[in-house]
Amino acid sequence: MSIETQASADWLQSVRWNSLEDRLDLLDQRLLPGEIVYLELTTSEQVWDAIKQLAVRGAPAIGISAAYGVYLGVRALSGSREALLAEVLRQCDYLATSRPTAVNLFWALDRMRALAEALLGGASTGDVTVEAAKQALLDEARAIQAEDEETCRLIGEHALGLFEDGMGVLTHCNAGGLATARYGTATAPMYLAKEKGMNLKVFADETRPVLQGARLTAFELQQAGVDVTLICDNMAGAVMAKGWVQAVIVGTDRVAANGDVANKIGTYSVAVLAKAHGIPFYVACPMSTIDLTTPTGGDIPIEERHEDEITQGFGKRTAPVGVKVFNPAFDVTPNEYVTAIITEKGVIRAPYEENLKKLFE
Amino acid sequence: MSIETQASADWLQSVRWNSLEDRLDLLDQRLLPGEIVYLELTTSEQVWDAIKQLAVRGAPAIGISAAYGVYLGVRALSGSREALLAEVLRQCDYLATSRPTAVNLFWALDRMRALAEALLGGASTGDVTVEAAKQALLDEARAIQAEDEETCRLIGEHALGLFEDGMGVLTHCNAGGLATARYGTATAPMYLAKEKGMNLKVFADETRPVLQGARLTAFELQQAGVDVTLICDNMAGAVMAKGWVQAVIVGTDRVAANGDVANKIGTYSVAVLAKAHGIPFYVACPMSTIDLTTPTGGDIPIEERHEDEITQGFGKRTAPVGVKVFNPAFDVTPNEYVTAIITEKGVIRAPYEENLKKLFE
Repeated sequence: MSIETQASADWLQSVRWNSLEDRLDLLDQRLLPGEIVYLELTTSEQVWDAIKQLAVRGAPAIGISAAYGVYLGVRALSGSREALLAEVLRQCDYLATSRPTAVNLFWALDRMRALAEALLGGASTGDVTVEAAKQALLDEARAIQAEDEETCRLIGEHALGLFEDGMGVLTHCNAGGLATARYGTATAPMYLAKEKGMNLKVFADETRPVLQGARLTAFELQQAGVDVTLICDNMAGAVMAKGWVQAVIVGTDRVAANGDVANKIGTYSVAVLAKAHGIPFYVACPMSTIDLTTPTGGDIPIEERHEDEITQGFGKRTAPVGVKVFNPAFDVTPNEYVTAIITEKGVIRAPYEENLKKLFE
Repeated sequence: MSIETQASADWLQSVRWNSLEDRLDLLDQRLLPGEIVYLELTTSEQVWDAIKQLAVRGAPAIGISAAYGVYLGVRALSGSREALLAEVLRQCDYLATSRPTAVNLFWALDRMRALAEALLGGASTGDVTVEAAKQALLDEARAIQAEDEETCRLIGEHALGLFEDGMGVLTHCNAGGLATARYGTATAPMYLAKEKGMNLKVFADETRPVLQGARLTAFELQQAGVDVTLICDNMAGAVMAKGWVQAVIVGTDRVAANGDVANKIGTYSVAVLAKAHGIPFYVACPMSTIDLTTPTGGDIPIEERHEDEITQGFGKRTAPVGVKVFNPAFDVTPNEYVTAIITEKGVIRAPYEENLKKLFE
């Protein structure tokens, strides 16, 4: 896949390597859905800022951006192999400070670091030139991006096997293409259905308080020509009661060893509603999201966020000053509500403890 | 109860008769929760405007305001008894056009009209003076208000019998004191608990898209010193899963003969969540809300409202232009989810078809 094809793709890409200009073009997600603006980044400092300021969000998209950031940080270097290696390591340490909790960020930087060590370190053959090593770093960043796209596509292929033409599918929050190289996780079957000429009717919960469903999911699916209808979170039950939804699919931030699923607040309510209506509830995620070292959902810490997101989340105060607020960012859906977990390796069903373990063997 | 006591009450009153100034003081609910401003109304035209422009909302509060409006429309009249009667009827017809779908508005105006006919019409004794008749019209408006307060108080007393000290109670939308003379319907037991020194921990759903829960319920309960916590609608399930909620209580716009309940969108989702967690789901309403001529919830028409409420509900666009939106204002909760219906006459349980009918015998 040539970079030029990517740059001119008719789908909305959050991270684009621009090989003509040797720069990173990043979709500024803070301006969505109002404006589609690509930041043109030529230094690692600009990449650091873009991650820090949330211009790019979504764990895979952050990791990919940081990998390109390493290349941008060293591409002008023309000294010794040792100097290049030292600078790669310094850039990796620096970029890792942009968002200290993003696991994919560290994973991607570790990969860049390992490549540099292999090519330039003490154990290397010593015959890779500085120019060749820089090219290899760029290729590695592109590989990380391509692999993420492939992972999401595989998730989509497996998920699509569970769907049928004409089905209504409800999703919550944004586990979308904007958060990944392409396709997203929960949205992957929606994009693939579109590619294959299959019609899915998607309902996107707006996802209060931060409205990722309204601002991002509805937006990216609309851009892709997918049939999407935006609803408020509290309408999910009414839409299910009307018989308009045949499947729910969501992403996840972490799957525990027993199949309990942590995801954006409101996911649990949707899962309970789905079960009450006899609708399957699917969770889509890459293998890297399954954490066998976390025994159950109860072991996943739930971040509580600032009350302003609820009381004045739209630039305007909509609740009384001083009112008590409960604002958890995530909730846990117990495994009994999860019909299946869909990864790039396939569809996993209960008993999860056993079947998730097998997946890693 | 003297009007002066009302005017200086330390609770927030949506409709206040100011006898010192012979005028209607109306809380401008459009400015809540940011500002507490009372409109000082001295003409029926001003009352018509206040109803039309939603400065006053909530069916009982609208009816009470219109009744005072009739008095304001005729109080300066000094002609014959016949002229007064004609003007009362004209004012009633005029005020009825302020919000054509508000049932309580017509009910209150019918009552004013009937009183005027009885005192001044062809079948009257003829010994009531114009001044005495005008005073009687004012007294009738005050009676409508006092009776509404009493109805809500009785609903609260009955509901409170279902609650215990220390319980967590979740409510949706605003069936509050602001919508009635005082106490509200779903909120009545919360105010009475406070009066009796009983502690309830209330969770108020913010209630997208129009945020009546955040703007009105959280506000009026906070003003009254009730322990209230504001949550987003999609957090109700998470709060129930934590064991923080022992009862749900909501108002209703119409109860069908079989006990199906129409109420603000999202009520059905809350009812399903309550059932899944073994939490009782109560509906509080005056008898006038029960409509035996509507057989089931399926016979209740559900208004769909403008997409802007979802896509730019806060003065700022938060969803892509042109996205499809589904925005029903209400949903129907089937009777199987309703643990009890609480009216001024007491607590009604299933079988609803039978027990609701009995209530009117």
